[in-house]
Order: sequence, then C-alpha cells, then structure tokens
Amino acid sequence: MDKINQAIHSIKPLDESAMSDARARQDNLTKPQGSLGQLESLSIQAAGIKGEVKPRLIHKVIFTLAGDHGVATKGVSAYPSEVTPQMVYNFLRGGAAINVLARQVGARVIVADLGVASILERHPQLKDKKVGMGTRNMAEGPAMSRDEAFRSIEAGMELVEEELTRGIDILGTGDMGIGNTTPSSAIAAAITGADVAKVTGRGTGLSDQGWGRKVKMIEKALDINRPNPKDAIDVLSKVGGFEIGGIVGLILAGARYRIPVVIDGFISGAAALVAASLAPQIKPYLIASHQSAEPGHQKILEHLGLIPLLNLNMRLGEGTGAALGIFLVESSLKILNEMATFAEAGVSEKT
Amino acid sequence: MDKINQAIHSIKPLDESAMSDARARQDNLTKPQGSLGQLESLSIQAAGIKGEVKPRLIHKVIFTLAGDHGVATKGVSAYPSEVTPQMVYNFLRGGAAINVLARQVGARVIVADLGVASILERHPQLKDKKVGMGTRNMAEGPAMSRDEAFRSIEAGMELVEEELTRGIDILGTGDMGIGNTTPSSAIAAAITGADVAKVTGRGTGLSDQGWGRKVKMIEKALDINRPNPKDAIDVLSKVGGFEIGGIVGLILAGARYRIPVVIDGFISGAAALVAASLAPQIKPYLIASHQSAEPGHQKILEHLGLIPLLNLNMRLGEGTGAALGIFLVESSLKILNEMATFAEAGVSEKT
Repeated sequence: MDKINQAIHSIKPLDESAMSDARARQDNLTKPQGSLGQLESLSIQAAGIKGEVKPRLIHKVIFTLAGDHGVATKGVSAYPSEVTPQMVYNFLRGGAAINVLARQVGARVIVADLGVASILERHPQLKDKKVGMGTRNMAEGPAMSRDEAFRSIEAGMELVEEELTRGIDILGTGDMGIGNTTPSSAIAAAITGADVAKVTGRGTGLSDQGWGRKVKMIEKALDINRPNPKDAIDVLSKVGGFEIGGIVGLILAGARYRIPVVIDGFISGAAALVAASLAPQIKPYLIASHQSAEPGHQKILEHLGLIPLLNLNMRLGEGTGAALGIFLVESSLKILNEMATFAEAGVSEKT
Repeated sequence: MDKINQAIHSIKPLDESAMSDARARQDNLTKPQGSLGQLESLSIQAAGIKGEVKPRLIHKVIFTLAGDHGVATKGVSAYPSEVTPQMVYNFLRGGAAINVLARQVGARVIVADLGVASILERHPQLKDKKVGMGTRNMAEGPAMSRDEAFRSIEAGMELVEEELTRGIDILGTGDMGIGNTTPSSAIAAAITGADVAKVTGRGTGLSDQGWGRKVKMIEKALDINRPNPKDAIDVLSKVGGFEIGGIVGLILAGARYRIPVVIDGFISGAAALVAASLAPQIKPYLIASHQSAEPGHQKILEHLGLIPLLNLNMRLGEGTGAALGIFLVESSLKILNEMATFAEAGVSEKT
C-alpha cells in the first residue's frame, strides 16, 4: 500500500514547455497545420509525458498479464479455464497474435502470471507474480481480499520497475484470462454506474442464452458484494481479477516513471477505470489504442474522456490493440522528428 | 484508350477458393473466431486479390502523383501553386510526411509529375509523366481535353507496369497538387449527385470566406461544363486533374495485375469514384485506408461501399493515410501467416 501511495504521490502533470515546443515544431513542418490530425496531437502528448521535445521510442514493451477467474467455471465464457495456461505457453513460444503484432512493431512482450489457477512450468521468459490460484467466484463473495488487490497492483508496478534498466520508452497493456470480460463488466458497471446489460458483451463468443446468464451472474456479484464505487480497491477486490489489478499497477508505474501508457481494449479499460479512480492524475499519460467490439468499452472510454485511435472491431485482448496503438504513436514521433521544416525544405508557407 | 479498355476487360473477380482457405485458416488460429475483426477480413480480401492462401508483402509501393490546377490561382487554396513543385523536391529529398511514414512501413515511394505547371529539374527518382503544364481553369471551361484525360490514366497505368519487374505486392495511392481538393469535390458532386457545399471542405486551411468562394467556383465549373455523370471520362476531363487521372490509372492497373490497392484520402477517393464508374469490378481490389477530415470523403466512401480502417482526422494527402493502411494490411497478413493454430499450440477449442 505504501508503494502504491508513494507512486500516486510522485505522478506529475505533463511537461507544458516540452508540449509547447513540440506544437511549435509540428506547425513548422512541411504540411498544412493540423493536417495530420491525431498523429500531431499524439506526438505532443508523448513530448509532454516524456518531458522532451523530440522523444524517440527505442524500447517498446507490451505487458501481457494472465489470471484466472472463479466465476469462469459458471458458464460465463465460451472457453474452459484451461485455455489460460495453454495461451501463456503459446505466448512464450511466440505463436499468439500478440507475439506476431509485437514483432511487427518491434516491441518486446513481457508475459506474467498474476494469478493463473494452475502451477505453470518455469520458463526464462515467464514472470512469476502469482497472487493466488485464480480469484474466487465473485457471484458468491469477494473475488479476492483487499490485501490481494494491493498485491496485484504492486506486482504490476514491479513488472515495470524490473524493465526500467533494459529501458521502456512506451508501454502497452495486455491481458489473458478466460472469463475476464465478466469482472471487467462488473467493474465498469460499479464505477460508471451503467446498467450491467449495457456494459456486458459476448466475450469470446457467447450465445444469447450464455449472455443472459453472464448478465445475471454480474448482477448477482454486484448485489452480494456491494462494492463501493468511491473506493476503487473495494471494487477491484470484490469484482475484479488479479491480472486486472496487475494492469492497474502497470498504469500507475507508467505515469510515475513518465512513460506513455497505451491501453488495450476492454479489460485494460476496466483497469484504467480503477487506476483513474485511485489517481485521476494518470489520465494524461493514457493513450486509448482502439475501440473494442465489447459494448462496455465505449462507456469506459467516455468515462475516462479518451478517444480511441482505431476501431477495427477487435476483441481479442493480449495487448493486440496496444501493439497497433504503439505503431501509431511511433508514426507520430517519426513525423515530429524526421520531417523537414518549411525553412529546411525551401517550401513557401501559407499565404 | 485501347490500353485502358484492355485493362478493364482483364480484371477478374477475387479468387473465392483462396479466400475460403484463408477464412478456414483464420478460424483455426489461436484466438476466438472473428476476434481480430477487420484484421481478419483484410487478410481474406488480400488472399482473394492475390489468389494465394498466405500472401506476403515483400514489395510495398506508394505512388505520389503531382499535378497543378488552373483553378488554384482563383483563391481556392490557402497555399500558392509554387508549393506543388517545392513539395515534389521535398519528396525527392525524403523530408515530407509521406517519406517518413513510407520508411516506417518499409514502402518505396514513387514520385511522378503528371502535370506540374513548371518544368521540374531532372532527378533519378522522379518519373516524368507530364500530360500538361497544369490543368486549365475548370470554372471557365474543361480542365483538360478528353485525350488528356485518357493520357493521364494511361500514365498511371504505366507507372505500375514499370514497377512490376521490381515487384509490387501492395500499392498505395497518393497525391500532391495545390488546389486539388477543388476538382475532387467537383468530381464527388458530379458522380454522387451530392450538393457541392456538402462535399466541399477547407482543404489546406481556408477561411469561411475562402470556403464560400471555393463552393461558388465549383458550382460555376459544374454549371459551365455540365459533366455527364454516366461518363466518367467526361467528368475527369471537365472538372478533374492530371494527378487524379493518374491515380485512376494506378487503381485500374492494380486491379488488372491483382495487387491490393490501398487508397489514401479525399483526392484518391475522387479518383476511385472515377475508376469504379469506368469499371465497377475494381471495387473488391480497394482498401480504404482512412476517413479524411474533408467532409466529401465520407460521401465518396459510402458511394463506393468502403469502410475506412482509420479515422485520425488527417487531411494531408501524399499517400500518408495509405502508408498507415499498408501497415494494417501487413498486420493482417502476418497474423494469417505467423500465428499458431489450436492444434499446433495444444490449445483447447471452444466448448
């Protein structure tokens, strides 16, 4: 808890001077002012986050955090929980979607076990941050203790800190956890006050009947646990997940160490809601990579005041949207760093 | 004209068998079916275009075509026409936005003079396809002759053919031409039947007054020339531009040689309208990279039945949107080619 409070109190506003210098440079590049739209504003945000006029992205890191969910055994997912560890091994062998997209954008993937419900084989690339053997069924009581919620957040912060020596110029968040759209919908409903049915989708591919069961399960969990919307730790512990807590930690540490944080889709969005509830000053550090096909994601982004860069009807998680978002942030910074100015290129300015 | 007709008659439908095999492979990859949204459908479209189950993008080419416009001297642009050749030199030196983004995505940029209103210095990287010294003022009569319209289209086709020996696995379209949103709006109004004011924007940054003048100029051009909406060559010659005709040629040749064609923003969209009017069978070869901030672009995409991949409020042209679109097509094909299947990864399938 001390670690978390210390991080929160260390988060500073963006560097206004770097932003205004970056804006001035954008306006002098050989293009009509504003004509690259969000590619311009992204570069200015990154300059403000990093406190440099022309930041470069050398070290790009995507964190894919895995955890299991007690509620997943209750028919809220189209896949069995055994898929969580199977996918962790797939990440470690490089065969999953996140590996492919991370290779394309030149990012390294850090895979961490935050709370998979089985003992995973040791692997040099697997970070062991297990808080528990999956959460408990939130429809019957709290998913985890308050202490476990703190530990999951601290674990996410440690993951970032352990990578600082290798370097992190930008970080992307990602998740793997069969059933984890269920706690994410519960968090979205608890914090935004939206109706459960409005923020609940079909996850990996539920039928109408499965969707109805999922909505009822989330309503039951909220009814039994009564999470306090003003206390984000209460929400996370009662209806959250270990990997979701871990992502809260990634976000807090990103803001703490002035690293642009590219958030993935719905599950990362739920974690961002918790993080912003704990520390609203993290918001300027967030970049929303994409609009997920999960209906609750739009509600989350609106609540956070974020505009997603992409809308490709994706709903996979793992950090796949974040990888594409990192590419666009890099585009924006290459524009800022590499384009010629009007004076350099001998191009006439606006009449 | 024979060259154009021959190309049009050589365009075949997409390869259904390659598409169905690619769909089957996507459904066996370690992710819920459909969970990568447009990244899945893009890969299937590319498979159909190239007639291969697992196409690869080795050679990526962006064509940036330049031309001047007689109407540009009449206050329809915030920049003077001298900027067109200045930007051509900027492209050749690698300092423009398209150079930066093409480098990022590993594409080569082919710069061509389709009709710049000045004699450009020779340069080994500049393709001379000049059809005329800028178009005539379309508000006083046809922008070009019917023969010049054909020649501009043929020039675009030649550009593609000249690159075939080096290889083109995907092509992006791009434009540079001070004043060229004016003919593009005129083409959009003529072909879609939309009101001029609805498809006219501020281009590089017009004031309210400048915008009003631009709308009046386009209305006058349509009134004087009366282009026949059923005759795309009539539309192109009366209210088009040389670089726009060149892009029509890029599109026709792309479809002819089974190359995915990633269209840039508003100017490329106007060219796509002309191309689809000449040969509706090109449509499945088109990929709309982004939704431009120019208001007429949405109308164009709707008319063509295309959904843009990105919406970043960009309005620069040059092929900048196409470069980002090429990246996403490549993402989609890397997913198709590189991800593990459920069987390969030992991951359980949906219950």
